[in-house]
Amino acid sequence: MAKSTLLVGGLAALSGATHAASNFPDCSSSGPLGNNSVCDTSLDAVTRARALVAVLTTAEKINATISTSPGVPRLGLPPYEWWSEALHGVANSPGVSFNTDSGGDFGYATSFPQPITLGAAFDDALVHAVATVVSTEARAFSNAGRAGLDFWTPNINPFRDPRWGRGQETPGEDPYHLSSYVKALIAGLEGTGDSESNKDGKYKKVVSTCKHFAGYDVESWNGNYRYQFDASISTQDMVEYYLPPFQACARDSRVGAFMCSYNAVNGVPTCADDWLLNDVLRGHWNWTGGNDDGFWVTSDCDAIQNVFLPHRWATSREAAAADSLKAGTDLNCGTYYSHHLQGAYDQGLINDTDLDTAVTRLYGSLVKLGYFDPAESQPYRSLGWEDVGTPEAQQLAYTAAVEGTVLLKNNNTLPLDLEGKKVAVVGDWAAATAQLQGNYHGVAPYLHSPLYAAQQLLGNDSVLYSAGPGYQDPTTNGWDSIWEAADAADVILYFGGIDEDTEAEGVDRVSIAWAGTQLDVIGELALLGKPMVVVELGGGQLDSSPIADNPGVGALLWGGYPGQDGGLAILDVITGKQAPAGRLPVTQYPASYIAAVPMTDMALRPNVGTSFPGRTYRWYDGDAVFGFGHGLHYTTFDAEIRLSGSESSFDIGSLGSNCTEEYLDLCPFASVPTTITNTGSVSSDYSALLFLKGEFGPAPHPLKTLVSYGRAHNISASGSAQLALSLTLGSLSRVDEDGNRVLYPGSYSLLLDVEPGLATLNFTLTGEAKTLDEWPAAPANRSGSGPGQVPAGYFVGGYGTANDAGPGQSPLGN
Amino acid sequence: MAKSTLLVGGLAALSGATHAASNFPDCSSSGPLGNNSVCDTSLDAVTRARALVAVLTTAEKINATISTSPGVPRLGLPPYEWWSEALHGVANSPGVSFNTDSGGDFGYATSFPQPITLGAAFDDALVHAVATVVSTEARAFSNAGRAGLDFWTPNINPFRDPRWGRGQETPGEDPYHLSSYVKALIAGLEGTGDSESNKDGKYKKVVSTCKHFAGYDVESWNGNYRYQFDASISTQDMVEYYLPPFQACARDSRVGAFMCSYNAVNGVPTCADDWLLNDVLRGHWNWTGGNDDGFWVTSDCDAIQNVFLPHRWATSREAAAADSLKAGTDLNCGTYYSHHLQGAYDQGLINDTDLDTAVTRLYGSLVKLGYFDPAESQPYRSLGWEDVGTPEAQQLAYTAAVEGTVLLKNNNTLPLDLEGKKVAVVGDWAAATAQLQGNYHGVAPYLHSPLYAAQQLLGNDSVLYSAGPGYQDPTTNGWDSIWEAADAADVILYFGGIDEDTEAEGVDRVSIAWAGTQLDVIGELALLGKPMVVVELGGGQLDSSPIADNPGVGALLWGGYPGQDGGLAILDVITGKQAPAGRLPVTQYPASYIAAVPMTDMALRPNVGTSFPGRTYRWYDGDAVFGFGHGLHYTTFDAEIRLSGSESSFDIGSLGSNCTEEYLDLCPFASVPTTITNTGSVSSDYSALLFLKGEFGPAPHPLKTLVSYGRAHNISASGSAQLALSLTLGSLSRVDEDGNRVLYPGSYSLLLDVEPGLATLNFTLTGEAKTLDEWPAAPANRSGSGPGQVPAGYFVGGYGTANDAGPGQSPLGN
Repeated sequence: MAKSTLLVGGLAALSGATHAASNFPDCSSSGPLGNNSVCDTSLDAVTRARALVAVLTTAEKINATISTSPGVPRLGLPPYEWWSEALHGVANSPGVSFNTDSGGDFGYATSFPQPITLGAAFDDALVHAVATVVSTEARAFSNAGRAGLDFWTPNINPFRDPRWGRGQETPGEDPYHLSSYVKALIAGLEGTGDSESNKDGKYKKVVSTCKHFAGYDVESWNGNYRYQFDASISTQDMVEYYLPPFQACARDSRVGAFMCSYNAVNGVPTCADDWLLNDVLRGHWNWTGGNDDGFWVTSDCDAIQNVFLPHRWATSREAAAADSLKAGTDLNCGTYYSHHLQGAYDQGLINDTDLDTAVTRLYGSLVKLGYFDPAESQPYRSLGWEDVGTPEAQQLAYTAAVEGTVLLKNNNTLPLDLEGKKVAVVGDWAAATAQLQGNYHGVAPYLHSPLYAAQQLLGNDSVLYSAGPGYQDPTTNGWDSIWEAADAADVILYFGGIDEDTEAEGVDRVSIAWAGTQLDVIGELALLGKPMVVVELGGGQLDSSPIADNPGVGALLWGGYPGQDGGLAILDVITGKQAPAGRLPVTQYPASYIAAVPMTDMALRPNVGTSFPGRTYRWYDGDAVFGFGHGLHYTTFDAEIRLSGSESSFDIGSLGSNCTEEYLDLCPFASVPTTITNTGSVSSDYSALLFLKGEFGPAPHPLKTLVSYGRAHNISASGSAQLALSLTLGSLSRVDEDGNRVLYPGSYSLLLDVEPGLATLNFTLTGEAKTLDEWPAAPANRSGSGPGQVPAGYFVGGYGTANDAGPGQSPLGN
Repeated sequence: MAKSTLLVGGLAALSGATHAASNFPDCSSSGPLGNNSVCDTSLDAVTRARALVAVLTTAEKINATISTSPGVPRLGLPPYEWWSEALHGVANSPGVSFNTDSGGDFGYATSFPQPITLGAAFDDALVHAVATVVSTEARAFSNAGRAGLDFWTPNINPFRDPRWGRGQETPGEDPYHLSSYVKALIAGLEGTGDSESNKDGKYKKVVSTCKHFAGYDVESWNGNYRYQFDASISTQDMVEYYLPPFQACARDSRVGAFMCSYNAVNGVPTCADDWLLNDVLRGHWNWTGGNDDGFWVTSDCDAIQNVFLPHRWATSREAAAADSLKAGTDLNCGTYYSHHLQGAYDQGLINDTDLDTAVTRLYGSLVKLGYFDPAESQPYRSLGWEDVGTPEAQQLAYTAAVEGTVLLKNNNTLPLDLEGKKVAVVGDWAAATAQLQGNYHGVAPYLHSPLYAAQQLLGNDSVLYSAGPGYQDPTTNGWDSIWEAADAADVILYFGGIDEDTEAEGVDRVSIAWAGTQLDVIGELALLGKPMVVVELGGGQLDSSPIADNPGVGALLWGGYPGQDGGLAILDVITGKQAPAGRLPVTQYPASYIAAVPMTDMALRPNVGTSFPGRTYRWYDGDAVFGFGHGLHYTTFDAEIRLSGSESSFDIGSLGSNCTEEYLDLCPFASVPTTITNTGSVSSDYSALLFLKGEFGPAPHPLKTLVSYGRAHNISASGSAQLALSLTLGSLSRVDEDGNRVLYPGSYSLLLDVEPGLATLNFTLTGEAKTLDEWPAAPANRSGSGPGQVPAGYFVGGYGTANDAGPGQSPLGN
């Protein structure tokens, strides 16, 4: 989501409608719903939703399954646009309309850094704070008729392959990190435990939508398009890597909505995958809590059409719609439900019960959002323009950008006192404004470029600016002004990398090297012998080894997409006003990595006997340019860790025996009290990453696994901070080939920080292996009505090879 | 050429200059060159050019090697922009400026179909006529100070891989076809034998530039960019496939200029390849005729920078410039000569003799163009605005589009009488205007879309138009208006395919299937049971088998990029006002083809024991969807062929014994008088393709080889036409593994038309094999100053893998 053309027509039509009439149903006693129980606030949500659905005609129910729902005028149900976006702030989308009148209310919303940058902070409290601001502003927009109540965020697929154009939308490559992050995010978005605005917890603040379920992380690679890609994923990798963030959403956070994806997994398009949507999501993860209300799944936009073509899962367009509805896809972004569900109904492929299930879920969700309730009874309904873009929100956007900045290299160059210096601010990102946002952005109150920040600090006359080289421009045409700026400067700040021209929705990268023109320019600048800093921007990593190895470049920072105050945040890190403490949330691979790894090979483990080197810091057995978790500081730290309690050996049989958690993997194992001491001279944050190592459970064994993290703030020189990192039984578990999560006997060690680490400790588990979670296997021989049965001559050849991953693809289960 | 950012600044500066002052040198007797022999029209070109170069300073000579040459003000030499374009009409480029005043002179130029469409006509006389109009209009622009005298056209690399984004710029995949086409083209551009305007043949009309020399046909495939791609090409393939069009340019047409390419071949960047540019081009092909004047090589734009990075051929920027100049690259589009030749000179890497050679060639070319001669002595200097866009030129553009239209499928549907019918005109190309031009276009006088043509023919009320589906738009958002148009229509005309969004300079395709949205829409339309025609547009072929096999689609046409009158031309073919007789100039492969063929594998022959199926109709051993040369008609034909003379067996020893040609392969073998009889009821052109088959010479043997072709025009029903197809000794030759062109004994057969063919005849060659051309082998161990010697830490990793063709690349010589 979203496909490249937004429903602009739909948006315009809707915003017109919502402005002209109320954007909430008419529950007045004299209104058409006055006697319907949906308006009875004393009843539970499912009862209320069912009461409404009971009075709908079949055609009205079909209308209710379309994301641009026309409502039911005869019942006073207004149109409702389900598609609103808020990835890192309220964002442009069919459901959201910013005021385009200059200076008018609701003309902007706070624009936070992209998740990849927020992920680099390794600070769940920050994530929760950001999400809280986003949902507050979203509700204010909704109250003004300028947004829906549900938002199609987060994108929580792990950033598996460095080429992925949408990796920027995720917090990184590690499933534990994503799971922890997403719980904080959903709590902030949905207002869980939000005592300030919602004392009784009765209402959801907004509904969040975890996407893209599941195995979605290919846009377009070598002829493999997301609409047709069939991801071959082993059960072990599925449970261990692809699904944990979604389990965190569904089972642990009971998020309000899911989105099924474009791709198929092991032959089945996810939106038509009854096992995935019903058995796993609703059954095994107990998402609905046994009460089938208010938890809905939307298709990605036109993914139902893709079930027909190119997936060829269904024989007919009607069957594609019916298969998807019955598999549990309740809402369709696209036109296949609106055009073909009636035909499916007429052909007997679906019945009213199928429709009732979907529509009850959808209206149940709106009930929980207070859609049918009086405004005065709901704290969130009082949010308004004064709650958008507050000074605190702006400060938080700045802080998030600072926290997400990662110092990759520092050859005694940073921090840099720029006072009184002539500073060259050059490169394709030097004057970046819109670029700072990445994708899925809204309208920011301001966008402060590095150039702006430097000019504010030093005055315009001391800043020598040049754009270029134009990293997508292979010519040398624009280089002269770079030489002029650099020749006249005392200090060179180069802001480069990639942006949405190279990595974007629909666009995977074909190279993870720096552009040759940038390397040539950086190389010539480095020959000048002036203090020089390179800032790498963009969400996907570039192989920065030529810069890291170049002695003429004194320091290298990474900033991702740092949002509305990104330029200022990075400049403040450069000058030392702020100290960097972010860490890479992904592996920075050498440029050669992608030659050995077809993007379509979903395996994580290295493949013995082939050149496949494995994926992510847990499995990649080659040399990273900069590893996951790498991040330098302006100071030095020492640390101590210990296990709460005095034991260093544990009997598996007794672990969790007093646990009251519903799921064994959530049972506490121990907390790890951690003391961080700043042994240097600069006050600084410290993000503590705790890794687990050991050869326990099924081979091969990961190199290490992140099991806990936390960020200590502003530790003064010679000062200390305490963090209580916690471990659950799940932290120690491994996943076997059948997908079961198991606790194994063996020797375990904990490592704080990346190698060599600041502290370690060892312990052992003894006794018999114990299964914490038994995985529901997918049925064998799942097939749709489609394959092999399409009308002769229709599709044949049209997509014959695109599902093929091309030469070099490894078979399933590498 | 050209890189994605044009030298817009340079263009603006130049056009200003040329408008302000004369755009020709001051050769008046009182002028600064009055006493220099360059102005002496009685002397030969090289003497004149040397006289000018003798008075230049080193800095002035370096300035003269830059494509945006500043001239020499002290000598009255004005600036000269060498970069003008005219691929299929005078085109936007730094050297060309169209008048942007509405209605002003020189506001447009005739826009012919792209070469891929012109190639489909298989009509060299048409090519010559088109090129003659282009050069006339180009000269008119030049005389008005709105263009240079040299044009960087044609692109004559064979269309080797269906994914190539620039295949549209070429006439097709076959080297014989390209060689024959390019001779006609250059004669038309340069005015060779142009008795009308240039009675004594003294002046070149314009200088044409054969590009991209050599082995250039990858833009960007799976991380392999043209700037760094190192094409591994066997000597046999090089001589047999990649070089013949360039040999035709240099040896046989003595074209005025060449362009070396971005890529390397067998490790050597072509612009730094002394063997390729000096030994092969200037030596073996005797391009300069032994007189080193007036024949120059330009680099593609910033290709000299690429010699440094990413090719890493040279240790330093200065060495990259010096290596290229000494290898024979006389002119640099880019800044490496202007920035680094002086440094190279100071370091002793080049001397004045090196510069003199290059600059003499460049000024010698201008001398031949009459640059230094009085206007009144030159017929071409009198061409003006009245010679641009004449009615005859416009008619020729229409005719070229008709001749290039190919009928792929016809199920008794075409021609279609549209009179009195409601006609749906739908699809992404239905209202195409700018799309009709393809790339490297100028400003056309008009751009007539299919929609315009239909409305002109039937009136607006009878034409039901819908755009969409938006082939790059994966959503169904725009489909409703298509259903509306189709539902209301009697006849459905669908105009689809691809365009510059998918295939372009810098953009190779990743799929050769029709877009899924187009297939879904075409499939639904075909269910309506109405007469339906699909027109495939775009330069690269799509696997049309789903359309060919769909009984609901009555006919399929292909039109490429048909130019300014393309919509009218195709509609006239649909209605039968014109009869189609074009033929596919490339193989239409099944979509699965590209999965088995890395784009970077330059081999032509199928690889025994691997899945590599070979390339082009000569070697591809799988089933084509539509083969090279396929093209249906509205009538039927019979044909007879015979060999001139009565023999059917020939002794190799005596062949060519009376030949006066300088090169044995050009010696006549026989002419093939051919009689074509129209046995149907519709008057029609017929393009005769003559193929040679047989198992002679080195194995493996090609399936067949095009050896001659010609187009008979307007053969009336039951009428006949004669064509004299001709064969040379080269037609019968094969190329051995060392690159020698050899005549072998064996059994030969000729086939007229594609299988099963309209006529065949057999003959034999006896005696000993005879070498027609002995190939100059490249020296062993050619290496530049660069590889392995670059400063540590500079490039390493930056491009480490991009030269790697990725998994599946076959080694050299498959």
